[in-house]
Amino acid sequence: MQVEAFAAMKAGGPLESYRYDSGPLGAEEVDVRVTHCGICHTDVDIIDDHHGIGRFPAVAGHEAIGVVEAVGDGVDTARIKVGDRVGVGAIAGSCMRCTTCIAGRTQFCAHRDDTVLRGVGGGFARYVRASQWRHVQPIPDAIPSAEAAPLLCAGATVFAPILRYGVRPTDQVAVVGLGGLGHLAVQFLAKWGCEVTVISRSRNKEQDAYSLGATDFVASGTPGELEAAAGRFDFVLSTVTADLPWGDYLDTLRPGGTLCFVGVPPSSITVSAMNLLPNAKTIGSGIPGGIEDTRQMLAFAGRHDIRSQVQTYSLPDLDKALDSVREGSARYRAVLEL
Amino acid sequence: MQVEAFAAMKAGGPLESYRYDSGPLGAEEVDVRVTHCGICHTDVDIIDDHHGIGRFPAVAGHEAIGVVEAVGDGVDTARIKVGDRVGVGAIAGSCMRCTTCIAGRTQFCAHRDDTVLRGVGGGFARYVRASQWRHVQPIPDAIPSAEAAPLLCAGATVFAPILRYGVRPTDQVAVVGLGGLGHLAVQFLAKWGCEVTVISRSRNKEQDAYSLGATDFVASGTPGELEAAAGRFDFVLSTVTADLPWGDYLDTLRPGGTLCFVGVPPSSITVSAMNLLPNAKTIGSGIPGGIEDTRQMLAFAGRHDIRSQVQTYSLPDLDKALDSVREGSARYRAVLEL
Repeated sequence: MQVEAFAAMKAGGPLESYRYDSGPLGAEEVDVRVTHCGICHTDVDIIDDHHGIGRFPAVAGHEAIGVVEAVGDGVDTARIKVGDRVGVGAIAGSCMRCTTCIAGRTQFCAHRDDTVLRGVGGGFARYVRASQWRHVQPIPDAIPSAEAAPLLCAGATVFAPILRYGVRPTDQVAVVGLGGLGHLAVQFLAKWGCEVTVISRSRNKEQDAYSLGATDFVASGTPGELEAAAGRFDFVLSTVTADLPWGDYLDTLRPGGTLCFVGVPPSSITVSAMNLLPNAKTIGSGIPGGIEDTRQMLAFAGRHDIRSQVQTYSLPDLDKALDSVREGSARYRAVLEL
Repeated sequence: MQVEAFAAMKAGGPLESYRYDSGPLGAEEVDVRVTHCGICHTDVDIIDDHHGIGRFPAVAGHEAIGVVEAVGDGVDTARIKVGDRVGVGAIAGSCMRCTTCIAGRTQFCAHRDDTVLRGVGGGFARYVRASQWRHVQPIPDAIPSAEAAPLLCAGATVFAPILRYGVRPTDQVAVVGLGGLGHLAVQFLAKWGCEVTVISRSRNKEQDAYSLGATDFVASGTPGELEAAAGRFDFVLSTVTADLPWGDYLDTLRPGGTLCFVGVPPSSITVSAMNLLPNAKTIGSGIPGGIEDTRQMLAFAGRHDIRSQVQTYSLPDLDKALDSVREGSARYRAVLEL
């Protein structure tokens, strides 16, 4: 199929119309006509080549929502059929043969198909192809497409550690940073039943935090506020991409608590063993979970009115949308409408 | 009661006979006539005042085995009675009133009675007093007293994280360091059903590792050996008190695996978020668990022939025993016989 995509021809962009041939549709594959695609920090990393390993032209985008255009041989059409509204997230396929995939841990498959690392096969395009239909997620009717898009990566990223680390509805939890990931984490954890505190540098987003379901707010930039939260939380989810004094954040945990990273700080994480051992604390980390975790996340979001707060951009404004992510000014997620 | 103890009168010792009055036996309290006491690194830390906060005279010792001499009011004599063979470990009491104690998480009680921090109330003595009878552990008949002593701290320390982090008998695990903690960890994990690898700097202890139940051995000091273990383990338990390249140890984990610290490295633990996130790895930590965890540990050790390998020392050789711990030459745990 001839696909019109929106590619950075060199590091830093801008994005330009770029056509490529996706070839014949193979077995197990699904073509999706993209209607919306969320914009994640990782997309900017790819376009701006932050890691210096970029191949250009680069078509980013890995939070694609759209309509199934065609299915290849072997696709179970009782699950995924032409006309279905679906999502293609960070992983567009995995081998489904290795012990890892067979165990349902497809996110760790050594041969997985990372949508954003494909070169020209990302979701900033008229069509995106999933190389394995099992990774294509039907979207619950309750969730509008623009609001569904960010769930596919940001939502899956914050939801997976809730499952992995066994967060309980009775837990006191905190979310560090209120951005694309954080504003979803607050909603998921509040609807999970937890008492949720937002930790943010300033009070700028305090009212937003409450309206998303938080019941307390800690302004970490105000001297003494973080210290006053010592020993309070069972689970702290850090969504920020900044270097923070992580020992102080471990101190906000109750004995046995977990500080979990879903945002990547630029520098190493340095903690003293004496921040960890005496109260048996844990440092966790997370990426989106397996296929079933993501399905559960979407179903949970649908049942509990968990919605991304999005700013939608049409095609001519795609670079403007990317800038809002670069600047961190999106409230709270930029979504491209095609 | 008048108690003859063996105290360091100043930092670094030597230990001398020292008498103190333990006062009348209060409610819930238990006096134990000590027959054996294990010697842990923490005892040396106290005697040598490594943390610079010592009070002298100092009576260390927190792996005491002995016979119940007297019980105070309120002690449930169906559980603990005069003449019973029991152990008093790192925690000799806790308040049993706070929400933490009521939840069974007595190891985190803010008012707990740490045996080794009492000043003159440690287990290097003719008698040791538990301030709360529930912390006194009956010793299974199958375990001789000298071999039981190290279970009370070292055994409890390595066993608790097996429970906490949900290690499964199907897991591939590694134990870093074969010393007082490590030689017990290998036995517990092997009897737990796991495939156990020992990671040690040299091959000096390789045969010991196999005889304890390990099935593989990695000499981390040999170039390439640790790297060859990349991606192998679900759970790695570090028992060493050295600074190691922790990123390399995280690399030995399978996706979703846990690197758990029960030994305290002298310097901070520094890892890149990119060592953690892409494969959702966890850094755990551990101290001895609650009362019931320790009871289960003792029962499990009794049923599965898990034994400390001990070198016993009589009173005149107590300083020699301490030196063996200072030098790390104990194979694998020094125990004082009174």
